[in-house]
Amino acid sequence: MKKLINVPNAVVDEMIEGYVAAYPKYVKVLPENKRSVVSVETARAGKVGVVIGGGSGHEPAFMGLIGRGFADGVPVGNVFASPPPDPILEVTRAVNGGAGVVYMYGNYAGDCMNFDMAAELAEMEDIPVQTVLVTDDAASAPLSQADRRRGIAGGFLVFKTAGAAADQGYTLDEVVRAARKANANLRTMGVALSPCAVPQTGKPSFVLGEDEMEIGLGIHGEPGIERGTLKTADEVTDALLERILEDMPITAGERVVVMVNGLGSTPHMELFVVYRRVAKRLEDLGVSIHRAFVGEYVTSLEMGGCSVSVMKLDDELIRLIDHPADTPMYVQQ
Amino acid sequence: MKKLINVPNAVVDEMIEGYVAAYPKYVKVLPENKRSVVSVETARAGKVGVVIGGGSGHEPAFMGLIGRGFADGVPVGNVFASPPPDPILEVTRAVNGGAGVVYMYGNYAGDCMNFDMAAELAEMEDIPVQTVLVTDDAASAPLSQADRRRGIAGGFLVFKTAGAAADQGYTLDEVVRAARKANANLRTMGVALSPCAVPQTGKPSFVLGEDEMEIGLGIHGEPGIERGTLKTADEVTDALLERILEDMPITAGERVVVMVNGLGSTPHMELFVVYRRVAKRLEDLGVSIHRAFVGEYVTSLEMGGCSVSVMKLDDELIRLIDHPADTPMYVQQ
Repeated sequence: MKKLINVPNAVVDEMIEGYVAAYPKYVKVLPENKRSVVSVETARAGKVGVVIGGGSGHEPAFMGLIGRGFADGVPVGNVFASPPPDPILEVTRAVNGGAGVVYMYGNYAGDCMNFDMAAELAEMEDIPVQTVLVTDDAASAPLSQADRRRGIAGGFLVFKTAGAAADQGYTLDEVVRAARKANANLRTMGVALSPCAVPQTGKPSFVLGEDEMEIGLGIHGEPGIERGTLKTADEVTDALLERILEDMPITAGERVVVMVNGLGSTPHMELFVVYRRVAKRLEDLGVSIHRAFVGEYVTSLEMGGCSVSVMKLDDELIRLIDHPADTPMYVQQ
Repeated sequence: MKKLINVPNAVVDEMIEGYVAAYPKYVKVLPENKRSVVSVETARAGKVGVVIGGGSGHEPAFMGLIGRGFADGVPVGNVFASPPPDPILEVTRAVNGGAGVVYMYGNYAGDCMNFDMAAELAEMEDIPVQTVLVTDDAASAPLSQADRRRGIAGGFLVFKTAGAAADQGYTLDEVVRAARKANANLRTMGVALSPCAVPQTGKPSFVLGEDEMEIGLGIHGEPGIERGTLKTADEVTDALLERILEDMPITAGERVVVMVNGLGSTPHMELFVVYRRVAKRLEDLGVSIHRAFVGEYVTSLEMGGCSVSVMKLDDELIRLIDHPADTPMYVQQ
């Protein structure tokens, strides 16, 4: 697959250079690790520091979401690979305003290991750290083992919830509580239509036939739960939504956020066709959509397909989801 | 190529239904044509109405850009095809707040014909209409025939300029003057790496070899000026930027806006690698980048590749480009 890059091994560093050059009013790189990207404000006194992260290749997540009402810092990993503890720790020190730091990332072994190690090092420097794992991918494990589930696009909503809570002056315990509630109220189901290729190999991450799709496929090409013939958008959407509703029943009168996330190469046109069906189905159930997110929030390079996320809301989550955000790649008034 | 759609002929209507369902606080459809999309505010008294448009398949353009500080209405055409006069006229009536209406679109024969026809009909109803053609694509005709050039991604910046001017209370003549200045100060050069497929045929719009790129290719697959072997991101960026600077010299001390626009399937990672090189080259020339736009602004479904736009600024254009915008698919504070 064609890539507009220079040297494959330099692509992440060059991306960060370009990103910081494009948005110098928002972000900067710390001195020790060129993968430590933080808000130009760094620590805000008394505010919980919000660190999100994971591998690169998911832009706008994670690096694109640094700013008021969202994240304070992002240690950037290689493509689809966790950042090592060093940049995580450097970012942690920089964004700690005395109220502690929350780590949030998708539930992947590499991220867990490296962020946990950084948390231990930070605690030794008397920086309180707590962790919220995102586990929204309903396809990746049964409900009885929900803590084994992967984190995928819905993580955006968990990060936004926590970023808003921190901006509103919540304590570390309260930020963590709100973010965990968001995660518990959230389910995502994805469908893949075509693969991506990491720059190092240039090879497709998986192979699907010309008329095939795979439901539940992970954002790094991890196996899904059902491979089949590509159906109509309405049929695919119904299949995704039914899995979500089986896993997390929603009753008439409840309020939700819906996200239809493009994985990289699926046109916005198709995302809106999918959203149309989600909206219709939820309306038929008497469920009220408080806010919609349709676009690219957590991508997998040029992967084709999308995911549908539904998050149930209470008054607190509504207030946090509605809180403004101002980042280079996501602005909400 | 795989599409997440229902019936090909219904995809535009279903996209609009999904879009309006997702953003009911911003947009609505008018009663006569289901392709007439306008701001929920419709006409604002005394403000020039801003109508942008053209075919669909370019989302976020054009439909995604309806809101304060940007467009007031968009007649939506079929994929890569101009809207007919009817929805243009219906939108025009709805957004006319008594100060007249400006039409802005890329310079394509179909759009010119249909928008001109609508303008004549509007004038018969005593609605003053003026037109600004976007002609930013430096590859599509020599400078001596600049009025024959196509409009591509840079149109976003012309629309934004006019939308801001209208929001600031400019008269119709003044909005048109500012938008034409933006267009005159703007050049775009694109490179295509892979094709898109319109839903009706599902067939690739053009064919490029596994290691080929084409510089200057249009956003509907129109021929470019140079097909060659895919080079490094820096080499490709240099080639695009050199064409722009040959066509529109920029000297040390000048201020510009830079846009690196993804055509649909090119990862943000690569767009930032390209931006990095543009920023470096302009910095070396002593040119100051006032604001950067890196992302998907004007797409061509799932086409691969990107374009680089540079717009020279004066104090007025800076004030207009910095003016806030609040639309479903583009927010600027």
